[in-house]
Amino acid sequence: MDTQEILKKLTIETPSKIVLLVIDGLGGLPREETGKTELEEARIPNLTSLLERSICGLVDPILPGITPGSGPAHLALFGYDPFRYQIGRGVLAALGIGFPLEPGDVAIRGNFATVDEEGVITNRRAGRISTERSAELCRLFEGVEIEGVDIFVKPVKEYRIAVILRGEGLSDDLSDSDPQREGLFPLEVKPITPSAEKTSHIVNEFISLAKRKLHHSYPANSILLRGFSKHRIFPTFSEIYKLKAAAIATYPMYKGIARLVGMAVLETGEDIDSQFKSLQENFNAYDFFYLHIKHTDSAGEDGNFEQKVVLIEEVDKNIPILLDLSPDVIIVTGDHSTPALLRSHSWHPCPILLYSRFCRRDSVVRFSERDCGSGGLGRFPAIHIMSLALANAQKLIKYGA
Amino acid sequence: MDTQEILKKLTIETPSKIVLLVIDGLGGLPREETGKTELEEARIPNLTSLLERSICGLVDPILPGITPGSGPAHLALFGYDPFRYQIGRGVLAALGIGFPLEPGDVAIRGNFATVDEEGVITNRRAGRISTERSAELCRLFEGVEIEGVDIFVKPVKEYRIAVILRGEGLSDDLSDSDPQREGLFPLEVKPITPSAEKTSHIVNEFISLAKRKLHHSYPANSILLRGFSKHRIFPTFSEIYKLKAAAIATYPMYKGIARLVGMAVLETGEDIDSQFKSLQENFNAYDFFYLHIKHTDSAGEDGNFEQKVVLIEEVDKNIPILLDLSPDVIIVTGDHSTPALLRSHSWHPCPILLYSRFCRRDSVVRFSERDCGSGGLGRFPAIHIMSLALANAQKLIKYGA
Repeated sequence: MDTQEILKKLTIETPSKIVLLVIDGLGGLPREETGKTELEEARIPNLTSLLERSICGLVDPILPGITPGSGPAHLALFGYDPFRYQIGRGVLAALGIGFPLEPGDVAIRGNFATVDEEGVITNRRAGRISTERSAELCRLFEGVEIEGVDIFVKPVKEYRIAVILRGEGLSDDLSDSDPQREGLFPLEVKPITPSAEKTSHIVNEFISLAKRKLHHSYPANSILLRGFSKHRIFPTFSEIYKLKAAAIATYPMYKGIARLVGMAVLETGEDIDSQFKSLQENFNAYDFFYLHIKHTDSAGEDGNFEQKVVLIEEVDKNIPILLDLSPDVIIVTGDHSTPALLRSHSWHPCPILLYSRFCRRDSVVRFSERDCGSGGLGRFPAIHIMSLALANAQKLIKYGA
Repeated sequence: MDTQEILKKLTIETPSKIVLLVIDGLGGLPREETGKTELEEARIPNLTSLLERSICGLVDPILPGITPGSGPAHLALFGYDPFRYQIGRGVLAALGIGFPLEPGDVAIRGNFATVDEEGVITNRRAGRISTERSAELCRLFEGVEIEGVDIFVKPVKEYRIAVILRGEGLSDDLSDSDPQREGLFPLEVKPITPSAEKTSHIVNEFISLAKRKLHHSYPANSILLRGFSKHRIFPTFSEIYKLKAAAIATYPMYKGIARLVGMAVLETGEDIDSQFKSLQENFNAYDFFYLHIKHTDSAGEDGNFEQKVVLIEEVDKNIPILLDLSPDVIIVTGDHSTPALLRSHSWHPCPILLYSRFCRRDSVVRFSERDCGSGGLGRFPAIHIMSLALANAQKLIKYGA
């Protein structure tokens, strides 16, 4: 049974407002010196005070033991079954730069790269060329068409690009050309299923064409492709939840996921203060806000325990701005854990705090991995967060008589 | 995977006895004056003492965030997947008055109502005529048959009636005639799917016939119909669990659900003491008892916090009677929460207490929403209650070798 099918029948429009604050990679692991996690070391007086009117728990992004990528983790946060709905990195990259994808488009992540005279990859990132230079090079591909398929090449950031194929009968069942290592030849793109034959041919043609067009653009003299993914239409927040939803995110991928589920992507500066300011400025115009803090995850991935602590504290300093807006429901959680100790995403469940007038407060007095384990929400899969949010905002009618 | 399919293979008959005490709408929310819920304010020395030999937890009736009606909430309590098994209000009403439904019957909830000379509804409840008067009027319909379909009209309570159609090829895919508001015309009953064409015709004929028969019965001069539902056969407690089960309930709907799953419905007086007395008297004859306390839910729906507290205390006073019978397993829970604060069913999980010699006691010392949150059973869906009951009664063999 797909929960969204049920929610679609039970949701009603009301004036109540929900804020989902996602502190990326929030959950951590204790460091030996102190025996405390990043969240436990952080001074978070505002979240602690909010806790007095909240209920807590632990969220498994996907399933116990499964470490999620950002895509499935966010889909689950938004209530989409991450096994039923899968989005490729290519589609995420394209959506993230605001490319107007159409159903059936195949989107691909690409790198400008350096190859030597024999075609061996010497630098997978073309010496990290600037975004401006990348944009210039992308313009060389304007109007390219191969066998009736239009090909769009768009800059993402530095050497990273998105390539989009648009035409009839395209498939994303293709192997990557990017071998993910230097000192190797790029791989031929191969069809994984017979129906991808035509697309593989077009992509290999495109890669050859790129080498010719970039012949004089050293160090960016070739293109590596990976993460072929076809754009499929998702049911939107408005269709399922009857929510007018907006995203405040700074990274392309998160904006992309937000667009995919029908959220408006709001203007915001890059730092945390600016994101909360954007929430303040747009608060009247929407009834659901997804506020995404990226840098906590980056600090975790860098193994920078102290920096993650500082960033959590910075989020905490902004909590009063959020409270001043008096949303009906506030949820603070992460999309997954990123313990600095592991320098990567992890499988550990993420603490969650849910505030509403009707949340049924528990006895948890500290927002941390350990304390949330005995919270009133228990331990549950992320896919239920949206139903809890909607219920607490009194946006759900009764199921059955 | 349907859990009942597995249980069917694992259950064995034993002399052990299970009592499932359902305090309807048990879970609550704290009121501001005391910061305590109904259950937290209640003096429940007997349940507290039982707790010393029990394990606790929190139960989600359906899914986190979903507020259930009594039908799906009870099916889940009884171990039936509430998404797979759905029962309409019409079937519940008919079962509740003990009408011997047959597979294929279409049951409908009805009201005697008042319409003016133009046919506009002036009183949806016919001025709340008495049950006796309603029974008199129902007798006007004895022997009615339209196009080979037998029609039974039966009194439920006051102005409320049940209408049952019996014949070949009937469908319940029909829209209601009851517009649920006064000052409007009754609606024509329309087929939602083509296969309901014939039934819609019969129902509209019946509505016309009713107006003619009730012409002189002002204020009960018409019938409004809603909640068409076809009677489907459910697997029974005896088939799945090998239990000889009995229900002690006072409200028609709960008796109806109990009959639907194959329970015997025992004689009982209306008050809580009488229900426990009925348990005492019938204890030797069955091995599973469903004891349903209705008024806690009604108090919650009335927003009467104090009354709900009093009723919980009244249940507690009867617990020694239950203990004297020495059942092997006692489960005390609700079908859902009905916080007086919300005056309605809610999505909040319900506390559960499970006593057995083998329950593996936890450290919870108070039976309450908050304390049960850290209980040894954790938070889990209601659909697992029956397996826990059977396991603790040593009625389940090992799964697999």
